[in-house]
Amino acid sequence: MTPNALDRLITLFSKLPGIGKKSAGRIAYHLLDSSPALAQTLAKELSSLHQAIKRCGVCGGFTEDDPCSVCSNTERDHSIICVVESAQDMRIIEDSHEFPGVYHVLGGLIAPLEGVSPANLSIDKLISRLGANAPNGARVKELILALNPTVEGDTTALYLQKTLKDFPVEISRLASGMPVGGNIEYIDKLTLSRSFRGRVKV
Amino acid sequence: MTPNALDRLITLFSKLPGIGKKSAGRIAYHLLDSSPALAQTLAKELSSLHQAIKRCGVCGGFTEDDPCSVCSNTERDHSIICVVESAQDMRIIEDSHEFPGVYHVLGGLIAPLEGVSPANLSIDKLISRLGANAPNGARVKELILALNPTVEGDTTALYLQKTLKDFPVEISRLASGMPVGGNIEYIDKLTLSRSFRGRVKV
Repeated sequence: MTPNALDRLITLFSKLPGIGKKSAGRIAYHLLDSSPALAQTLAKELSSLHQAIKRCGVCGGFTEDDPCSVCSNTERDHSIICVVESAQDMRIIEDSHEFPGVYHVLGGLIAPLEGVSPANLSIDKLISRLGANAPNGARVKELILALNPTVEGDTTALYLQKTLKDFPVEISRLASGMPVGGNIEYIDKLTLSRSFRGRVKV
Repeated sequence: MTPNALDRLITLFSKLPGIGKKSAGRIAYHLLDSSPALAQTLAKELSSLHQAIKRCGVCGGFTEDDPCSVCSNTERDHSIICVVESAQDMRIIEDSHEFPGVYHVLGGLIAPLEGVSPANLSIDKLISRLGANAPNGARVKELILALNPTVEGDTTALYLQKTLKDFPVEISRLASGMPVGGNIEYIDKLTLSRSFRGRVKV
């Protein structure tokens, strides 16, 4: 008995990550109950999304201008590249204001079972960035691998480490261990083991 | 550094119920990573939503045709009306295939603190339905109040009961008690007290 247009919208919403059938229903009814302006604005933004946003030719992040505001910013430290899996990870790190350098988006992690090999990732481009000069004349001195501490992240980090071993570049990886505010009681064995191995002097 | 168009989309998504800033980000990046067709289809459905769907003149539910498919269905039992808070509740009950009658959407619950008084609800329309004949000639004999077992739901049920006491119509309310599969250990006191009061003979 649900009207077809509403059903179609609910089905579409439930295809988005983190939205189940029930949440999709709540959202659709919320939009219907709200002023039409909300649905219209959302529609407008969605229809122009792929035209407005492209990938940065340098780092591979999403941007409206190419190169992106990070890559074209000469105030940033172009000698340190933070290597991330996705543009979303880049945004999360950028929002933390922790990192003064530039980024490189791999576009995935090596996962043979899912058919993702090194050739599918933006590794050639990373290598060419290691050899070239940045806009402000800097040469890349350090790579920080900000990859998830998962099997795929570990595999990709190991692969990059081997592939780039002849480049005069320092390679590090984000520390893995107990999250701040965490409780030893609830930490899994692997994380605990990493925390021990990565212990720091006080 | 997030592109403006992306930022705007994330802000819009995070205004929807059940979607926080992080989920909104995940959704926006998912749409960017997916084929443009998904964003386009979603945009199309959203922009036509309010034109395609209106409120049923009889029950107040959302529909493409007026009256809706439930109200215009002469096979249904028009002598029983299920009174619900919202069109979404109507859909949930309808999806359960538990109820053979017709519906009436109040459009809210009495909540003086939030400025919702009986005059804001579709109560006059309910009263006029009690006096009129249904499309198949039936007269309303029973009202089932399917309102949430909350303070607002209780208040609204009590108000309807008093307002409609002179009509020759039986009024009942959905049973309130322990959910199926629930555990007495974890049930709150109020629910337990209702379960005792509403106990059924076996």
